[in-house]
Amino acid sequence: MKIPRGFLFSTAGAGIKKPGRQDLALISSVETAVCAGMFTRNKIKGAPVKLDIERIRSGKARAIIANSGNANVCTGKQGLLDAREMALIAAKGLGIDENLVFVCSTGVIGAPLPMERIRPRIAEMAENIGRAGIEDAARAIMTTDTFPKTASKSLRIAGREVRIAGIAKGSGMIHPDMATMLSFIITDLAIGKGAIGKGLLQRALKASVEKSFNRVTVDGDTSTSDTVLIMANGLAGNPPLTGPGKDYAVFAQALDHVALELAAMVAADGEGATKLIRVLVKGAASKKDALRGAFAVANSPLVKTAFYGNDANWGRIMAALGKSGIAIEEEKVDIHLERLKLVNKGVSTGKDAPAADLLRKNKEIGLTIDLNLGPWSEKVLTCDLTGEYVAINAEYRT
Amino acid sequence: MKIPRGFLFSTAGAGIKKPGRQDLALISSVETAVCAGMFTRNKIKGAPVKLDIERIRSGKARAIIANSGNANVCTGKQGLLDAREMALIAAKGLGIDENLVFVCSTGVIGAPLPMERIRPRIAEMAENIGRAGIEDAARAIMTTDTFPKTASKSLRIAGREVRIAGIAKGSGMIHPDMATMLSFIITDLAIGKGAIGKGLLQRALKASVEKSFNRVTVDGDTSTSDTVLIMANGLAGNPPLTGPGKDYAVFAQALDHVALELAAMVAADGEGATKLIRVLVKGAASKKDALRGAFAVANSPLVKTAFYGNDANWGRIMAALGKSGIAIEEEKVDIHLERLKLVNKGVSTGKDAPAADLLRKNKEIGLTIDLNLGPWSEKVLTCDLTGEYVAINAEYRT
Repeated sequence: MKIPRGFLFSTAGAGIKKPGRQDLALISSVETAVCAGMFTRNKIKGAPVKLDIERIRSGKARAIIANSGNANVCTGKQGLLDAREMALIAAKGLGIDENLVFVCSTGVIGAPLPMERIRPRIAEMAENIGRAGIEDAARAIMTTDTFPKTASKSLRIAGREVRIAGIAKGSGMIHPDMATMLSFIITDLAIGKGAIGKGLLQRALKASVEKSFNRVTVDGDTSTSDTVLIMANGLAGNPPLTGPGKDYAVFAQALDHVALELAAMVAADGEGATKLIRVLVKGAASKKDALRGAFAVANSPLVKTAFYGNDANWGRIMAALGKSGIAIEEEKVDIHLERLKLVNKGVSTGKDAPAADLLRKNKEIGLTIDLNLGPWSEKVLTCDLTGEYVAINAEYRT
Repeated sequence: MKIPRGFLFSTAGAGIKKPGRQDLALISSVETAVCAGMFTRNKIKGAPVKLDIERIRSGKARAIIANSGNANVCTGKQGLLDAREMALIAAKGLGIDENLVFVCSTGVIGAPLPMERIRPRIAEMAENIGRAGIEDAARAIMTTDTFPKTASKSLRIAGREVRIAGIAKGSGMIHPDMATMLSFIITDLAIGKGAIGKGLLQRALKASVEKSFNRVTVDGDTSTSDTVLIMANGLAGNPPLTGPGKDYAVFAQALDHVALELAAMVAADGEGATKLIRVLVKGAASKKDALRGAFAVANSPLVKTAFYGNDANWGRIMAALGKSGIAIEEEKVDIHLERLKLVNKGVSTGKDAPAADLLRKNKEIGLTIDLNLGPWSEKVLTCDLTGEYVAINAEYRT
């Protein structure tokens, strides 16, 4: 994995939720980077999200400080003070402007941050900057994730190699309504300074998020902390991007790739999940119908538990489509599991046994629903619903 | 329990899903009854629902034939023929007009009914009409329900005792979007014949369902078979109701009582549930906000798993409210569990331990969320989400 030039990492353990693990990460760029971000649309937003939404206006960043174990949400004025202080300590340690530091917290809602334990560790991280790798940072932001999530891609612009790398964390309270969980993407791409570069980077990020993180659902619950940030520090030395065109398209495509890879990992690592399910609704009468239908299927507890039980219970898929409010004609619907046709014109093809086999054998499975009503299609990623999801979330705070 | 006069019951076992249990029920009135009904709004509707929607236009009924184990949904033309035949056999056996027989099926979607086993049992039931009780009928329509659901209430109109009784079945794929699961309500109330009585009964049923079955959610999945039917056969001998007024109000209130009791049983018996949760959202800026907020909380897998774990994780409640799109101001929200204040003006009161105690000790728990924004309130019934829900639904067809 090629790390974009000029980005440094550091992690530390502050025992925020429990002792014994790295739960703080610091990502820093040696140069001021152009920065764009997308944030949760949940009306209840964490203190760090509120701070970042203010700071993103400048379109500039030098560092991201993130912690897991506590989301710093519903923590009143003290929560905002704590978020600001986290940035301030990191800025002092790195010798940079505090307004260029972004803060992200993930974990339990409603508990004050244990700042007495966090403060000394942030200062320590700033001192140790560069001693950790990107995967260490990915690991430090994990909550119920079972593996760290990283992805990368290189591209060429005017003969220069441009690198993109990203990290993300899931893995519950996942339902996109702008951005997602936490994801930090770094690139050494050079992009115009000021409003032009900021606008262009935001545009690329928004398009990528729309295709990736905004097409993932684990449990239909939208987090209060969802944040995606991208920093572009220019060290690739390419002629700075200043508008749409071929170079922008190449970059945007590579960014899509990184975001999609991270999003698929988030779905595959959904709490308790045993399967990644790719739900494709096609033949819809409108784009909105395609998306709504795909999410209705992807969020149906009955569909998700059936997949867990290796039962391609297509009746539940039909019920989920029917309740979603989209245009649907029962006698036109075809459903495939991979290439196996389960439903032909609304009725069973009697393929339950081979479908169960397919589900037993595959950790990743494609479900294709053709409404045969129009030209629109949408794809959504989800996972199965298991007893382990319940166990994780029944015991999360205890 | 006082059974309304002139209603008779019968049950039989046709081994529809598995052998060894009564899975057919027949309810019959000795006189033609005024009839009203409400049906699922899922666009995929079972064959029996399609048939009943046609037949309800007459506003008259003599009998209901119901089966569990197979919903007769997504079964094409044969499904409709089978539903009609079920009614026809019952009508012949009872010596009544087939158009006065309603059909309800619940269970697996997408499999043809085993008519060869059902036919002889329906004829047998008609012969045996009156040999079973209302609780036997309630038991025969159960699918994953753990207990039969019956409720009753008597009232007086002009000195005459009027009786109402109802049965219902849950207990998964429950999210109201008109009516609910299956529920059959019978009463010996006399009500005007023709359009007047039909309209009045429909009005009373709609109002009751709105307050009861349409305020229950187990898993957010709306069934393809949801049906509530009411039959009023007049044998109480009261002066027939012909319009709104005091007598109508007394009847409507008693009907509310029966419907609410059945609805609470459906929530309490949600698949795998260990707790009935009464979610009250008050202080909302609009009626719509109150209802949407209450359902967002009641349907949140994260809230429901936390309750299962005896953890009053109010952060998840705030997150669910925030994602629901309703008007909310974080710093105004108060949350109570029973009388215990968990959240004051958006922040924790530190009562996690006594809250956990409350949850451990109660099978039924009230959650009150005050948005402190306006005068509107709504109440929704739900249950916790458990590993048992997953187990039931992962193995349902196998």
